[in-house]
Amino acid sequence: MFHSESFTVTTRGRGTIEITAEVARIVQAAGAPRGLCNVFVHHTSASLILCENADPSVRSDLERYFARLVADGDPVFRHTAEGSDDMPAHVRSILTSNSLSIPVVNSRLDLGTWQGVYLWEHRTDPHRRRVTVSLVG
Amino acid sequence: MFHSESFTVTTRGRGTIEITAEVARIVQAAGAPRGLCNVFVHHTSASLILCENADPSVRSDLERYFARLVADGDPVFRHTAEGSDDMPAHVRSILTSNSLSIPVVNSRLDLGTWQGVYLWEHRTDPHRRRVTVSLVG
Amino acid sequence: MFHSESFTVTTRGRGTIEITAEVARIVQAAGAPRGLCNVFVHHTSASLILCENADPSVRSDLERYFARLVADGDPVFRHTAEGSDDMPAHVRSILTSNSLSIPVVNSRLDLGTWQGVYLWEHRTDPHRRRVTVSLVG
Repeated sequence: MFHSESFTVTTRGRGTIEITAEVARIVQAAGAPRGLCNVFVHHTSASLILCENADPSVRSDLERYFARLVADGDPVFRHTAEGSDDMPAHVRSILTSNSLSIPVVNSRLDLGTWQGVYLWEHRTDPHRRRVTVSLVG
Repeated sequence: MFHSESFTVTTRGRGTIEITAEVARIVQAAGAPRGLCNVFVHHTSASLILCENADPSVRSDLERYFARLVADGDPVFRHTAEGSDDMPAHVRSILTSNSLSIPVVNSRLDLGTWQGVYLWEHRTDPHRRRVTVSLVG
Repeated sequence: MFHSESFTVTTRGRGTIEITAEVARIVQAAGAPRGLCNVFVHHTSASLILCENADPSVRSDLERYFARLVADGDPVFRHTAEGSDDMPAHVRSILTSNSLSIPVVNSRLDLGTWQGVYLWEHRTDPHRRRVTVSLVG
């Protein structure tokens, strides 16, 4: 059994957006009781993470940590024509994940108690990001 | 063909634990001659890596490198209610992997000569970590 | 439907090599109109990334950034018997990806406009790297 479906996330610039509900809805509609779900983002300056979803300060700390680890305007970067946040966005995407795989049990995402699925926009400007959910069962 | 099975790893605090044998056993029991195996950890403060499995100093170097890259008690972190190692554990999990996909040939993990599957506990205290192995063939 | 096929990439030492065409050829030959493609590298000192494929300066910036983030000869590393670039190669592999999953539509990789599949050789010497493409549909 294979099913896939895409959707678009409109971001408001750099930051994380929870998409657990959208992914779960597609998995439930697909109807396979057991399987493996893959979530893929079709871009190189946004990424996907599984993150603690209880305390929002986890995600603001994450943002602050990465802003220091991969600094906008770092002189090590020469590809700057698209802005000082463009190369950092590519690096942040590569340091995190382009896709996630999550087990499915009883047509639900078998996530841990505190795991949420987040799209992470790494550009400072708002973007439209395409995400594809694939389900194998 | 789809098969999945979960198991629990009891950790002794921060460090890597090889789980190649547990994953290989589930893959062999599933009986599919060819396929793709996914290993998933249901937590946001432990992760999974494929690492060189010959010289243990590779994993102690890895630990020392990450302890410096994401320092416990770094003042950039404000989410500190659960301890100074909690936010670093989330960041380390996101910088590494929440799941691994490994080809299966002849009902065996088709790993490279020096590749082992490790669960990486990022908290300093011992924890029980749930892992799910899914096999598609 | 399941299909898998392996190929070898001969690297010229540290750097990125685009393998999108090889992966796409295997996916097309497999003949499944829809599915999920997994690309796996059987080594712990080379990795796989999805990277912007338009401007080569993105990849040279990436190289320069990682050379600073995980410096060859860093005294934090004690596993140095195989050279000062060996432990950095393991760390760089773990910070990036051992495998990639990519949706397949109409027997083609459904990559974003600027996404290319790259093998990243992290050792300074040339190596032969085995890659396996698995397709589930």
